[in-house]
Amino acid sequence: MEVDFSAITTIGFDADDTLWVNETYFRDAEEKFAALLEGYETKNRIHQELYKKEIKNLELYGYGIKGFMLSMIEAALELSNNEVSQATVNKILNLGKEMILHPVEILDGVEEVLHNLKQKYRLLVLTKGDLLDQERKLERSGLSAYFQHVEVLSDKKEKNYQQLLKHLEIDVKEFLMIGNSLKSDVLPLLNIGVKAVHVPFHTTWQHEEVSVEENNYNYLTINKLEELIAHL
Amino acid sequence: MEVDFSAITTIGFDADDTLWVNETYFRDAEEKFAALLEGYETKNRIHQELYKKEIKNLELYGYGIKGFMLSMIEAALELSNNEVSQATVNKILNLGKEMILHPVEILDGVEEVLHNLKQKYRLLVLTKGDLLDQERKLERSGLSAYFQHVEVLSDKKEKNYQQLLKHLEIDVKEFLMIGNSLKSDVLPLLNIGVKAVHVPFHTTWQHEEVSVEENNYNYLTINKLEELIAHL
Repeated sequence: MEVDFSAITTIGFDADDTLWVNETYFRDAEEKFAALLEGYETKNRIHQELYKKEIKNLELYGYGIKGFMLSMIEAALELSNNEVSQATVNKILNLGKEMILHPVEILDGVEEVLHNLKQKYRLLVLTKGDLLDQERKLERSGLSAYFQHVEVLSDKKEKNYQQLLKHLEIDVKEFLMIGNSLKSDVLPLLNIGVKAVHVPFHTTWQHEEVSVEENNYNYLTINKLEELIAHL
Repeated sequence: MEVDFSAITTIGFDADDTLWVNETYFRDAEEKFAALLEGYETKNRIHQELYKKEIKNLELYGYGIKGFMLSMIEAALELSNNEVSQATVNKILNLGKEMILHPVEILDGVEEVLHNLKQKYRLLVLTKGDLLDQERKLERSGLSAYFQHVEVLSDKKEKNYQQLLKHLEIDVKEFLMIGNSLKSDVLPLLNIGVKAVHVPFHTTWQHEEVSVEENNYNYLTINKLEELIAHL
């Protein structure tokens, strides 16, 4: 679909799975979690119950690794009828700490694209999750200098974007959002009159999945971030 | 000590233990945690080890209840040589959830002071901790309308304040910070040339304690927030 980007002055980038790898580490941790509990339940049920626990706790904990750790511990206790060993609880804590300390893997082409766009546009990072965790990843990524501002949001709904654009005094017509999640980085923006580009990542958390009648929405999908340059 | 506030246009308020009660709930949770583990160690050692664990994990988890929950679980496993019961781990999770869901108790005089100051100053909330948790407390407090902007910081050091003032385009001479923590709300600001008012709360987390040669610093201490009005 062709979209007119001529009025754009400011571009917001999602971070996790748009600038760097993230979801892959959650998938890996879920596999390790299932392996730790394989004596108690099928892998399928372990995955299902962990997901249910995460969604139930989302309102309390918000997005991010710490909430995921707490949900893993709670799910392990429930799935095992409180029989999971203390050593396993410790292993779950360590799984989470490893995620927090994981080196940042920048996705292909990101640096070239940012370098190119920085000449002409004001670039922002708009991400959700743990504040400290996201700040740390940006610092470790070495990409900080490309961005004029970084905002960690507690959620990415219409309201969050509207408040942010108001706070940063950005006109909806001049803003473009880029990200891997249709649900968080594309649809809420289209709903408030902001343009968006979807760059799918190979893995999407179930909670971020959404079914869309594509014809109802006017946004551009690209396969790799590098393709953005040709459109701007 | 007399401080000249005539150039002030913008006032930043710390939130926890400045606008509403917070530290008290951590003290209560620590008492309940010690009671859960009383079969394994003395109350004194339980408090000491939990504190050590929190400080050790601070770099990983940052401030807030979720990190506190994870540190309690880890400390319980260590203090009991992995013998703490699974039911107790569950109780620790529930202790944390109760903290998250605790109703917000606004401190005496806060609403009157905000109402008064809002006529003349631009008011901000500058807090650290979990993003979602702080946003939720502000919403539940009913105080949102008094503030033009809310910023949750991952830490409250000179650098964090400098970045924020730059981002919000606030001149250091026009800004005043008010809070209960000398370490987080007063000293870093004085160090970057910003004025600050200290309103002590009856309880301070050990990590926030700092010894100060008062004579070296020029800030105002008040016993209650209401006293602020007379100085501004």
